Amino acid sequence: MKIALDSMGGDHAPEMIIDGAVEAANEGDGRFQIVLVGKKEILEKYIADKRLSNGNIEIVDAPEVIGMSESPATAVRRKKNSSIVTAMRLQKEGAVGAVVSAGNTGAVVASSLVSLGRLRGISRPAIAINLPSKTGGTILLDGGANSDCDAHNLLQFAFMGSIYADNLLGRTRPRVGLLSIGEEKSKGNELTREAHELLAGSELNFVGNVEGRDIFMGEVDVVVTDGFTGNIVLKFSESIVNYLSNLVREGLGKYPFAKLGAAMMKPVFRDIGLALDYAEYGGAPLLGLKGVVIIGHGGSSARAIKNAVLAAERIVTSNINGIIKAKAEEERS
Amino acid sequence: MKIALDSMGGDHAPEMIIDGAVEAANEGDGRFQIVLVGKKEILEKYIADKRLSNGNIEIVDAPEVIGMSESPATAVRRKKNSSIVTAMRLQKEGAVGAVVSAGNTGAVVASSLVSLGRLRGISRPAIAINLPSKTGGTILLDGGANSDCDAHNLLQFAFMGSIYADNLLGRTRPRVGLLSIGEEKSKGNELTREAHELLAGSELNFVGNVEGRDIFMGEVDVVVTDGFTGNIVLKFSESIVNYLSNLVREGLGKYPFAKLGAAMMKPVFRDIGLALDYAEYGGAPLLGLKGVVIIGHGGSSARAIKNAVLAAERIVTSNINGIIKAKAEEERS
Repeated sequence: MKIALDSMGGDHAPEMIIDGAVEAANEGDGRFQIVLVGKKEILEKYIADKRLSNGNIEIVDAPEVIGMSESPATAVRRKKNSSIVTAMRLQKEGAVGAVVSAGNTGAVVASSLVSLGRLRGISRPAIAINLPSKTGGTILLDGGANSDCDAHNLLQFAFMGSIYADNLLGRTRPRVGLLSIGEEKSKGNELTREAHELLAGSELNFVGNVEGRDIFMGEVDVVVTDGFTGNIVLKFSESIVNYLSNLVREGLGKYPFAKLGAAMMKPVFRDIGLALDYAEYGGAPLLGLKGVVIIGHGGSSARAIKNAVLAAERIVTSNINGIIKAKAEEERS
Repeated sequence: MKIALDSMGGDHAPEMIIDGAVEAANEGDGRFQIVLVGKKEILEKYIADKRLSNGNIEIVDAPEVIGMSESPATAVRRKKNSSIVTAMRLQKEGAVGAVVSAGNTGAVVASSLVSLGRLRGISRPAIAINLPSKTGGTILLDGGANSDCDAHNLLQFAFMGSIYADNLLGRTRPRVGLLSIGEEKSKGNELTREAHELLAGSELNFVGNVEGRDIFMGEVDVVVTDGFTGNIVLKFSESIVNYLSNLVREGLGKYPFAKLGAAMMKPVFRDIGLALDYAEYGGAPLLGLKGVVIIGHGGSSARAIKNAVLAAERIVTSNINGIIKAKAEEERS
């Protein structure tokens, strides 16, 4: 299996991307080959300078780059030779089995829709985020692919999220919650009231509305919401570690014994950091496509990229797309 | 000045409400008088049993109770003698200058709209939440009074939030951000794109879109969003302390020296707990009404109630309603 890596996307490209690719290739131990897609000269020079072993890494040239704040639709249309569009084309042609990108999320979504297309019966693909929780992780979707959604979209997100939680996280008959602002079905906005009815009438293990507090509590396996709300929750959660570290630092400067205490608590803090660190979760799949696309955080570290590549491998071998496709066709018939 | 307290609302009513009322009365030192509104017998018995001093506390009987999960509109219409509706009526009649309730939020909003009414020119009142941030607090509104909003509502929330931040938090020319999913004005959903234009054309100190991560970072003084998104962010933020305490407890059981370290870090944890504890912030004003209404958290402790009463006092003495009214009328003319 080959996995294409958008080597020009993200805040630390291409260095972190290549470092992550090498880590993944080492850990993959020959199970997959990595295709770095980007400006060939730059990629080759970095690999040569750092004398990285590249037995399981090849390079495909893509001279154009889509910036992090470019308008997605326009950029994808105009920059056919960008790393994102080229990587998607490689997958469409069957040269690779998956694409990983930490680049412009909107451009990745737009380009995957154009190149790969949606699975038959799926109206909108959704980003499935694995958020930390007391019970070992909650899948939230949509994490930001669709800022305006209708109730039927949310129902499909719930189906895809359930299949993902079942097949990749081993949650049998995953509990699905609808993110809203009150547990009663009458609570929420127009969208959630309509979605509640659809979900309650489905064969899913729908447990009703959940609130913001239930995400960390792990009361459900899958939390469904529109991509606007989902992305705000995601970004908010990512800032927690930074904010708390800041509060701890302030406290250490204030109390004489606290620094020694912090040293003794170091392993606890390390565990908490890992539990909350998105890099551990390694990218989020865009579900509902005829293909495998993993979206990494713009600020991805090498470890995050490595984990995103490993996530891509798992998605490909799980045949989750085949299961989603069968389910979507069953719904249509 | 008299402040009415809905003594039957909240998860720990009436005990915590009365305890908080007594604390507030002691701290208020005669500046205001508290009117406990609720089932007279129960309130009197609790005060007698605990031998609470009640020099600055009087009781108004309200034999009905609106439950936390009752449908707001119906409950307010049917239960005219509930503690919420009675407290609002007292304010309408001029017997009290403010109402504090930790009860059914929807019922408090509905009842305040019916009894007090909106300030001329204000389409929707909004709950202004003070969220913790690196720079000492960010005002987020709407915190949950309106689950479906239009762009003009968000513009008014921004005006009210700015006036609040200026007059109560001392932030001169407060920076206003629109909660969205990308900094560029094209990012977001239909609502935010339209609201962005209105805000950019206003005289407010609008700095553009902000993302979930910017709330804790304190990049802005006021964050504007619809009540659905705002309430989800609020509830999510409230669960952080609980989730992290859980992670710390797990870690302490795992590493031998960590417990001693935690003991040495105790003052740091206490400060962090205070920084993140909504009880410290003491309730959120519902802005845009012909009157003063403070909404407390359903799980309010006595300290939260005390702080909510003190917040009510500050709102009344600040004449913020007069300023909002003048501003709204200026906009209309």
